[in-house]
Amino acid sequence: MAKKEIKELTPRDENYSQWYQDIVVKAGLAENSSVRGCMVIKPYGYGIWEKMQQDLDRRFKETGHSNAYFPLFIPKSYLSREAEHVEGFAKECAVVTHYRLRTNEAGDGVEVDPNAKLEEELIVRPTSETIIWSTYKNWIQSYRDLPLLCNQWANVVRWEMRTRLFLRTAEFLWQEGHTAHATQEEAIAEARKMIGVYEDFAREMLALPVIVGVKSETERFAGAIDTYTIEAMMQDGKALQSGTSHFLGQNFAKAFDVTFLDKEGNRDYVWATSWGVSTRLVGALIMAHSDDNGLVLPPRIAPIQVVIVPIYKSEEELQRIHETADKIVSELRQHGVSVQIDDNDNKKPGWKFAEYEMKGVPVRLALGMRDLEHGTVEVARRDTLTKETMPLEGISAHIEQLLEDIQSNLYNRSLQSLKERTYICDSYDEFKERIEGGGFFLCHWDGTAETEARIKEETKATIRCIPRDIPSEPGRCMVTGRPSKCRVIIARSY
Amino acid sequence: MAKKEIKELTPRDENYSQWYQDIVVKAGLAENSSVRGCMVIKPYGYGIWEKMQQDLDRRFKETGHSNAYFPLFIPKSYLSREAEHVEGFAKECAVVTHYRLRTNEAGDGVEVDPNAKLEEELIVRPTSETIIWSTYKNWIQSYRDLPLLCNQWANVVRWEMRTRLFLRTAEFLWQEGHTAHATQEEAIAEARKMIGVYEDFAREMLALPVIVGVKSETERFAGAIDTYTIEAMMQDGKALQSGTSHFLGQNFAKAFDVTFLDKEGNRDYVWATSWGVSTRLVGALIMAHSDDNGLVLPPRIAPIQVVIVPIYKSEEELQRIHETADKIVSELRQHGVSVQIDDNDNKKPGWKFAEYEMKGVPVRLALGMRDLEHGTVEVARRDTLTKETMPLEGISAHIEQLLEDIQSNLYNRSLQSLKERTYICDSYDEFKERIEGGGFFLCHWDGTAETEARIKEETKATIRCIPRDIPSEPGRCMVTGRPSKCRVIIARSY
Repeated sequence: MAKKEIKELTPRDENYSQWYQDIVVKAGLAENSSVRGCMVIKPYGYGIWEKMQQDLDRRFKETGHSNAYFPLFIPKSYLSREAEHVEGFAKECAVVTHYRLRTNEAGDGVEVDPNAKLEEELIVRPTSETIIWSTYKNWIQSYRDLPLLCNQWANVVRWEMRTRLFLRTAEFLWQEGHTAHATQEEAIAEARKMIGVYEDFAREMLALPVIVGVKSETERFAGAIDTYTIEAMMQDGKALQSGTSHFLGQNFAKAFDVTFLDKEGNRDYVWATSWGVSTRLVGALIMAHSDDNGLVLPPRIAPIQVVIVPIYKSEEELQRIHETADKIVSELRQHGVSVQIDDNDNKKPGWKFAEYEMKGVPVRLALGMRDLEHGTVEVARRDTLTKETMPLEGISAHIEQLLEDIQSNLYNRSLQSLKERTYICDSYDEFKERIEGGGFFLCHWDGTAETEARIKEETKATIRCIPRDIPSEPGRCMVTGRPSKCRVIIARSY
Repeated sequence: MAKKEIKELTPRDENYSQWYQDIVVKAGLAENSSVRGCMVIKPYGYGIWEKMQQDLDRRFKETGHSNAYFPLFIPKSYLSREAEHVEGFAKECAVVTHYRLRTNEAGDGVEVDPNAKLEEELIVRPTSETIIWSTYKNWIQSYRDLPLLCNQWANVVRWEMRTRLFLRTAEFLWQEGHTAHATQEEAIAEARKMIGVYEDFAREMLALPVIVGVKSETERFAGAIDTYTIEAMMQDGKALQSGTSHFLGQNFAKAFDVTFLDKEGNRDYVWATSWGVSTRLVGALIMAHSDDNGLVLPPRIAPIQVVIVPIYKSEEELQRIHETADKIVSELRQHGVSVQIDDNDNKKPGWKFAEYEMKGVPVRLALGMRDLEHGTVEVARRDTLTKETMPLEGISAHIEQLLEDIQSNLYNRSLQSLKERTYICDSYDEFKERIEGGGFFLCHWDGTAETEARIKEETKATIRCIPRDIPSEPGRCMVTGRPSKCRVIIARSY
């Protein structure tokens, strides 16, 4: 019965959105909390985020960035300093107005103490450009202080009305890089470099091919001159914006009066970038690879890469199996493979198989008495749901290779799907029909916000980006017929 | 001039508190932000915190704990569920009352939108027992779900009126472990185990000897049955509570109705612990070892363990020095030593020496043309401020040993000071006189809150703990003469 319960997942075909929700909960990744819109990230889900953090942090440090930490709270007036920025964030801010509670009159609870009102309200950071640039003002005097390359791992809050585990939550975890440069060229190069770091990370760690591009004006970050993005395709053909990097020009430097003396002794405003990825990536990972049996994790990001399930009837059998299993574990751990033996006596092997399938553990070994006699082990891979009986001799080298194969297979599968479902389309009528089936559409667009808004209103699809790597020629807008410089990617999105 | 400026540190003898503040700012560790009571942790200070995190995280995982993440916000009513808990935290809570801003009437700023008032106010977590136990209720049904061993790395907010960088800030970073157990014995053992983990960490990583003990009732965590503590002695003889671990009994399980079925099928409330250390530890580290020249860091926690300063007159000389320096760097890095070459052309060697002294880099090498001729290098150690000319041959092995020696020396120095300044005292008059000079006093106390309050009022000293490892005999309270079971540690504290 337990087995059936854990296996009950809404199939993707039936209801993709419910399937996603089911996996998040049944694989033990996260759950909704009693605070509206805020999630609890459970140990297994957090384990995935930790692996993402470790790898990204290494990449940031290798590209010269240091971590720092800035306040959670932003004075209300700071937000208003940059006109577009406040426009973008004011409508979804959690606001702290008081700093004390007191016992209520009935004496059975607490209430806000009206005598403890803040002079100026504080915003729980939705993003930290304003508080960081108000600090950078004191750190930057001359070109010698530049570039300034900081990153912060933090929680942020955006009071979203419609939330969804990992994909859109009122509070989420992320990293935000904030850099300051002496020249425009250097800042643009930095913004592009960091979107490249995200692209490499998505490909190498998440087995996720992405389209790199630049956002249209409408879709830009509030306060940016240019927003670079990586867009991934989910299995339902929708786009998921998975990371962004912004060239902020001198907007925040001007808002917070951050200037520097250059080598020639001239004073100028500082050039800025910011860039971030969040726990949303966990959502992307789930939707990109998983199937109707549960989560499928690329080995490089899996908290548990290999699980060994002993099949035994007595304590003595278990002991003999352990001898062999322990050897495999110690060999694999020496090679940095994360492996566990599940000898929990309360659960049957079949239940365990289903559980590890649900949790997306890439490789599962089953080891019984007959295996010991024959010197074999049953090796099951999660991505293809296939099993194979292998000799125990040389098994750890085989598993290491298998983990690499699974990683490549997941990437290639996603890449093929991305290619197959990226369409060139020159007719708006055709577009309107085909968008229902999902996919990325390479279309000509006249570059106006009006046309963009019309497409969105009529099809619920948006311009995801002007792609960096897809060659294109000038043409005519599929909606208005006006001239277009190149094709853009249009898709429905999360 | 730059050199003088950086060296200007208020001497400890003159004003210990100003000396501390000077170091934090001049070593580039942290600064006050524009948000009252909140600090900015600068990259160098954050680098120390990251090293603490890595080592603690490894220790938590080795003892079976997993990381997870719970919401930043706590519904106001949750706080009231545990009577002592709300008493302890209600007076210093940041309260979120609204979720949106709007443009003000003048059109030059934003104001809180009165139409966006939350139905129930949210508290920015001061600690997470309540939100976590409201979640654990859904995770725990039977003894099979226990023990539940979670840790969270997070920011918390306590609206302190008098703040001080690292030691007491409105927002701080910490980890909080929250565990659930089937029996009282197991929970007590966990609380004790974790205070032991902190003790080991302080000794091995921070070179900080601590007194382990249990708090008096007055000094307990709000909602705990017992609070275990590690107390460190700062150079001015004051105590700094550096980590605490609480046995919470069934208080939070009862407040949130968390029960489980035991093996015999009986239902009982779950037993709990919580334990935490924070960025306060960075303050402890600074105050424990540093001197009038700046920060002194134990090598194991130092973001930069070795710095090489080349002494040269021409680009060509620099190149030749680099050849040798690069070899040292690569050898040291192979052995996991964190090392940097400072070939910044804008700063003179003397300025660099002063800067690395201020930043507490444990070992500094100076390498010039004469050294290359003689096959030597000048090695300066930060803890003793001594220099030695050493042969280049075998230098990296020498440095590795030196780092170990510095680590031990700092620990031994602190341990000696702790021993020398821990006094047995049986007279309250003597105590009142001697407490002015700082130190830990082992005194008999009658166990009453009245006497404890009187000592605090008359001497500003508090009972730090009933020490675990200091043998003691029954006696008579130094204040009232009433019977006492054992001596307690009394000291002034941060």
